[in-house]
Amino acid sequence: MTRVIAIDGLGGDNAPSAVVEGLRLNAERNPDISYIVTGPIDQMTSVFGGLTIAGERISFVDAPDHVSMDAKPSQAVRQGRNSSLWKAIEEVKEGRAHAVVSGGNTGALMAMSALQLRTIDGIDRPAIAAIWPTLRSESIVLDVGANLEANAKQLTQFALMGVEFARLGLGVRRPTVGLLNIGSEDQKGREEIREAQDMLLAMDDASFSYEGFVEGNDISKGTVDVVVTDGFTGNVALKSAEGTAKQVGDYLRAALSRSIGGRIGYFLAKGALVAFKRRVDPRRVNGGPLLGLNGLVVKSHGGTDGIGFASALDLAVDLAKAGITDKLHQRVALMNKVVDENGQAVSAS
Amino acid sequence: MTRVIAIDGLGGDNAPSAVVEGLRLNAERNPDISYIVTGPIDQMTSVFGGLTIAGERISFVDAPDHVSMDAKPSQAVRQGRNSSLWKAIEEVKEGRAHAVVSGGNTGALMAMSALQLRTIDGIDRPAIAAIWPTLRSESIVLDVGANLEANAKQLTQFALMGVEFARLGLGVRRPTVGLLNIGSEDQKGREEIREAQDMLLAMDDASFSYEGFVEGNDISKGTVDVVVTDGFTGNVALKSAEGTAKQVGDYLRAALSRSIGGRIGYFLAKGALVAFKRRVDPRRVNGGPLLGLNGLVVKSHGGTDGIGFASALDLAVDLAKAGITDKLHQRVALMNKVVDENGQAVSAS
Repeated sequence: MTRVIAIDGLGGDNAPSAVVEGLRLNAERNPDISYIVTGPIDQMTSVFGGLTIAGERISFVDAPDHVSMDAKPSQAVRQGRNSSLWKAIEEVKEGRAHAVVSGGNTGALMAMSALQLRTIDGIDRPAIAAIWPTLRSESIVLDVGANLEANAKQLTQFALMGVEFARLGLGVRRPTVGLLNIGSEDQKGREEIREAQDMLLAMDDASFSYEGFVEGNDISKGTVDVVVTDGFTGNVALKSAEGTAKQVGDYLRAALSRSIGGRIGYFLAKGALVAFKRRVDPRRVNGGPLLGLNGLVVKSHGGTDGIGFASALDLAVDLAKAGITDKLHQRVALMNKVVDENGQAVSAS
Repeated sequence: MTRVIAIDGLGGDNAPSAVVEGLRLNAERNPDISYIVTGPIDQMTSVFGGLTIAGERISFVDAPDHVSMDAKPSQAVRQGRNSSLWKAIEEVKEGRAHAVVSGGNTGALMAMSALQLRTIDGIDRPAIAAIWPTLRSESIVLDVGANLEANAKQLTQFALMGVEFARLGLGVRRPTVGLLNIGSEDQKGREEIREAQDMLLAMDDASFSYEGFVEGNDISKGTVDVVVTDGFTGNVALKSAEGTAKQVGDYLRAALSRSIGGRIGYFLAKGALVAFKRRVDPRRVNGGPLLGLNGLVVKSHGGTDGIGFASALDLAVDLAKAGITDKLHQRVALMNKVVDENGQAVSAS
């Protein structure tokens, strides 16, 4: 079955050029996918017109306005009904597209998606999930920025949504799950984390395995497939890791350029170093879904290029084909059943 | 003036051997420093007896018990009065030592220090500060694990203690300060962070410059000298960064060993790569003070070796010589004066 991806043509620092290039790469890899691009119609037909696939698999929806990267979400929602972002989400809401991808303003994307698509019954708040490259393979970390805080019930919801994403996005049959915590022994974490642990332990669900608390360094080790935390902590962890990877790379470059041996060594090892660089390239794992909505929304990093944007489109295609929204509906229904049957878990929320 | 450092002879995964080697290295670098080592007296005299400086600058305090790395702090406090950890802190409390250094159980160190030394008047809770290597130089991040949460007043206290540490530990005359936050525009961070910002802005203190909110990736960039956050977030950020640095190093090693060019390149670049490794070596910046106590307490990483332990001792020596505890007393007195004069800041707490 063919799928349709709606794309915010003006979303991201490098839009629309990164969008054009990303769409081109994705369209080559996925001959069965069609695209709806939103934006000022003249500009869009002009910049996308050069693509050889144009006219067949791309259509446009006129959206004269643009949500700027620093616009307040509340303001964007009020004034941005003619924006490329709003119109792209609308395509999913109206059932004309199976997913929407945007590299635009995260807060506005969140707010507009929540308003138009609403959360799944039984999910309080959507969460942004990130695919995190680890020493073992890849893990899911959520929430990485949608919610400043999360109570025990919400953390449990994040865990179950992360399990479904790991199954469909990473192909892990029975994902392992951990709650992000700090190692200090007495104070085994904040209260809501301990309560969420009780709820997850009470679930006894054959589709995942709850492994207990994990710490910050467990994320990159890949100790568990799904790391669960609130959006504040997850965002800080993600950005700290990104900053550190860049820092280590910069140190390495400086160290190798400082001596003749280093420069020759760099030259001889270049193939290996390029392979290494590709491995830690954040564009390879670009794109995080907003889980918990009645419709699939994928956020691309605002600063990414065409290769990165194509990765976000790949993810949207994979998750749309796997039917993640339906799977989440089923998962939440199951969770509510378990919670209803378990008085303790209910009172803990 | 000579200074005396009390050392928990049994603290850390590699104690006492790492402690012996660390003391030896530190004693060579600091001929004017004396040491008091706590632990079972027979074992201590035996393992430290081989050092050439033994008998002159090292004395011992008998402490038959040992606080294990996974002991609960509450339990350690109740049952550990004869432990090497308790006795080492006691040396500072009784005025016989200027600082105490331990690589032992963090929670027990915190609890025993708070009980014996008490916090400085005007400081609610001590904070653990970390020296974080950045692309620019080094920054201070606090709290990295003493407190699960922190309100606006406590975050402000952390900021001012961090300023004093940056002045004395890093030699920055007028440190820049930022509050760790996430970039989402609408929700400019949790309420306590916005309140702390109001309080810091109201201070108008010539000894530091408040620069606003910073994000996770700003830490390794070195955007500000002092990054302020609660202990939960700071601990996760620190461990995420540590994990990522290790991950990138492992990737690099694997990439270089996979091809002949890579292996030859590695051989030729080895000098540069060793220099690089030294630069990202966490042992170089090992040791974080517990700021806010009536006495100087330095936590060494539990898993470090002699070189790392010597770094923690270096830090204790430097901070003891600079008189950080007195400086913090003055700073807090000044802060309270400013807060008293500023009704808005008081009401914001």
